[in-house]
Amino acid sequence: MSANTDELFKNVIAHAKEYGFVFPSSEIYDGLSAVYDYGQNGAELKNNIKTYWWKAMVQLNDNIVGIDSAIFMHPKIWKASGHVDGFSDPMIDNKDSKKRYRADQLLEDKIAEYDASYQTDLAERLQIEMDKALKNEDLPRLKELILEEGIACPISKTTNWTDVRQFNLMFSTQVGAVAEESDTIYLRPETAQGIFVNFLNVQKSGRMKIPFGIAQIGKAFRNEVIARQFIIRMREFEQMEMQFFVRPGTQREWFNKWKETRLQWHLALGTDAAKYRYHEHTKLAHYADAAFDIEFEFPFGFKEVEGIHSRTDFDLSQHQQYSGKKMQYFDPEVDPETGKPYGNYVPYVIETSIGLDRMFLLTLINAYEEEDLSTEEKQDSRTVLRLHPCLAPVKAAIFPLTKKDGLPEKAREIMDKLKVEFNIQYEEKDAIGKRYRRQDAIGTPFCITVDHQTLEDNTVTIRHRDSMQQERVPADQLDRIIGDLVSWRNVL
Amino acid sequence: MSANTDELFKNVIAHAKEYGFVFPSSEIYDGLSAVYDYGQNGAELKNNIKTYWWKAMVQLNDNIVGIDSAIFMHPKIWKASGHVDGFSDPMIDNKDSKKRYRADQLLEDKIAEYDASYQTDLAERLQIEMDKALKNEDLPRLKELILEEGIACPISKTTNWTDVRQFNLMFSTQVGAVAEESDTIYLRPETAQGIFVNFLNVQKSGRMKIPFGIAQIGKAFRNEVIARQFIIRMREFEQMEMQFFVRPGTQREWFNKWKETRLQWHLALGTDAAKYRYHEHTKLAHYADAAFDIEFEFPFGFKEVEGIHSRTDFDLSQHQQYSGKKMQYFDPEVDPETGKPYGNYVPYVIETSIGLDRMFLLTLINAYEEEDLSTEEKQDSRTVLRLHPCLAPVKAAIFPLTKKDGLPEKAREIMDKLKVEFNIQYEEKDAIGKRYRRQDAIGTPFCITVDHQTLEDNTVTIRHRDSMQQERVPADQLDRIIGDLVSWRNVL
Repeated sequence: MSANTDELFKNVIAHAKEYGFVFPSSEIYDGLSAVYDYGQNGAELKNNIKTYWWKAMVQLNDNIVGIDSAIFMHPKIWKASGHVDGFSDPMIDNKDSKKRYRADQLLEDKIAEYDASYQTDLAERLQIEMDKALKNEDLPRLKELILEEGIACPISKTTNWTDVRQFNLMFSTQVGAVAEESDTIYLRPETAQGIFVNFLNVQKSGRMKIPFGIAQIGKAFRNEVIARQFIIRMREFEQMEMQFFVRPGTQREWFNKWKETRLQWHLALGTDAAKYRYHEHTKLAHYADAAFDIEFEFPFGFKEVEGIHSRTDFDLSQHQQYSGKKMQYFDPEVDPETGKPYGNYVPYVIETSIGLDRMFLLTLINAYEEEDLSTEEKQDSRTVLRLHPCLAPVKAAIFPLTKKDGLPEKAREIMDKLKVEFNIQYEEKDAIGKRYRRQDAIGTPFCITVDHQTLEDNTVTIRHRDSMQQERVPADQLDRIIGDLVSWRNVL
Repeated sequence: MSANTDELFKNVIAHAKEYGFVFPSSEIYDGLSAVYDYGQNGAELKNNIKTYWWKAMVQLNDNIVGIDSAIFMHPKIWKASGHVDGFSDPMIDNKDSKKRYRADQLLEDKIAEYDASYQTDLAERLQIEMDKALKNEDLPRLKELILEEGIACPISKTTNWTDVRQFNLMFSTQVGAVAEESDTIYLRPETAQGIFVNFLNVQKSGRMKIPFGIAQIGKAFRNEVIARQFIIRMREFEQMEMQFFVRPGTQREWFNKWKETRLQWHLALGTDAAKYRYHEHTKLAHYADAAFDIEFEFPFGFKEVEGIHSRTDFDLSQHQQYSGKKMQYFDPEVDPETGKPYGNYVPYVIETSIGLDRMFLLTLINAYEEEDLSTEEKQDSRTVLRLHPCLAPVKAAIFPLTKKDGLPEKAREIMDKLKVEFNIQYEEKDAIGKRYRRQDAIGTPFCITVDHQTLEDNTVTIRHRDSMQQERVPADQLDRIIGDLVSWRNVL
């Protein structure tokens, strides 16, 4: 991250706090690491992103429905999904500094070091050895490599390491009051399993026919070892996931369709297409037969914001095996090759999974601009969030020019007509210019000023956030003007 | 609960599952006690209830803003709030059956038994003794009372009891990867504290002036000993809470205002006012100086759905003390008595707290009707959810009369124009009558049929859920007709 982008990122974080988008959690108690709260403008922006996703996925597709499954689930589910045994990182502690590290991260850093000093052969050899150890889950070998390479703890500078141990990323808790009934359960590390275990409930009660999808927005939790970069990697985060159930053999075509569709969803917000790219996974997860990320160029480089995964029938088959319940679909459609119905099968699954908090951060960073407004006469600047109007927390602000002459009453009268439909803010304090800047800082697309002329002819001025241009319009057209600008039809 | 109401409640639960409103969590793994998932229609209904609350509380009141704080919070917060020490039930185990009971519940049952057999004096005496023991947290005395009364375990029928112990209702988990940094944190048992600890962040970044409110919708968790009655008491549940900050001395007037306002919110949905009542708390929680519940008449009796509490300055003062940070507001307004500004104070708080899941159940039960449609000629009936159109999961269903002659294409064309704004369902299978009944069962206010006449004059039939009446209307007026019926202006 260069000094400039570093600075930009810091400014965005400071702005997010100052203007009520994101607060560090439990701040008066000096915070809780890697947990954040959404403030009054953040909550609205987040809700608008959710609405955009829900409308695009659920409301516009009559073969996709949305559910809301609980965070608590039966512990066997995480055994079946592979999370109990496999959802862990290899960790190593330095005995002197008492600091813990991801063993593979230490080796990756060493590889990067070799690369940087043009020792490509050493880098390659270490990479191969590490990959082999990781693949075989050979923890002693990982430690051996760390010792062989003489990797020291950055804090203590010693190589006094413990053994490498697996550290599961799931949070656990005890449920149940009766001692012998008390069970360890987990906070879900992903929302997807809540969809898989409800596959038949939804398919039957909703009379869904393959291909069909189940979508969900909800919290998930991971005890991240290295939680960092603001809301990029949090211990508590929110996902928007959709599992699309298809006939085996058709997964490739659906995978390609969703890969395209999901990128279009991002681009429809008007974001510069050059800021997005696909990244194909070369090492696939055990359940996948294809996987692409949609990456966005954050100030600190391209990072995943959404994954599109072809998950095969892995999850449904696992649940079938672990629960003893059939997870099959009867497909009455006739196979043209055999002339018979496709019949019973465990569907294949294409998943689209987006991190809501990352999408939030992306939106904020992408919208943030420190604009130089200086003229020859004077220096001037403003901080403006160029949020898409559909996503803006406040759709319009309404200002009486002054606090007297009945202007506040008139402004409130206009506001009352608009506020059922739109989130409107009323402000009467300070000069109009200052009020404009405050609204720019939270991304409000319109500022409406009620002045003395309003009392005569019922017109108001509208000032546009991006152009800073003003125009005079009849007050009774405001609902249409705002409605047109913030209509979901602009992005859907 | 009488046989009839018992039956009604069972039918509602069965209906909720059959039509995709509520599924038992992890059902294929035989469920997880007191946890439920919302299905495709339940998720939409729940979202609509959230929207109704958010619009009424946040969008319509320019002195109330909404936030979204994390479930994970600093553990000291629960020390300050009193939950670590006080949020527990006195439990007792029977050594033979190994079953655990709430000690006070066993005594309450005994008191009810005395009352039922007209031994009022015994009932009263035991009540007094129990209250005293609870007030003094005298756990040995609670056990003594159980033994004195000869209360036996309903399972083992023995009086072989353990000592009474306090059992905390908060779920705990370990956060942090580094062993010595690992901390016990709790899943929040209420959303309110996320508001209190952000009081100053919101007040300052939002430039809020007292009186003002902070609202929030979110999950909370309680390890309920006796979790029961479907989604009435769950271990994972959702709250919609608003904390309204006022000047000390004005809390009574605001308390009364919110008590009224919140009941009106419920009644605006058209629910029979006789089904609601206020219940005044006579035993107040340690933080409260007044408390009323809004109760709804469920099939099993009146139950709290919302609480309005005058919480004094208890929470903010506690956080001030525990965090060492000032939780004060400077009030520039001039006190008419002293002629000076009110100045710095810790605000008083009025809380409105509604259980979203209970509100959901209330809505479902209240809407559910098994309607007898029998005529002299034949027996007939339907199950209909008379949901308020604003809350209905699906706003309209669109049916081509038959699957040919271009009717499906025409129906889809009409649907495509409506689906950005409204959640619309398309159905072409089975006879129209059967399709009507399926929509009745999920509460869809309108069914729109596209027939051969539609191809000629672009009119469709609309069939109204409640009256079952049909009318013919121009297809291009559908957006207005549906829009008018489901407009939030009807309830706000």
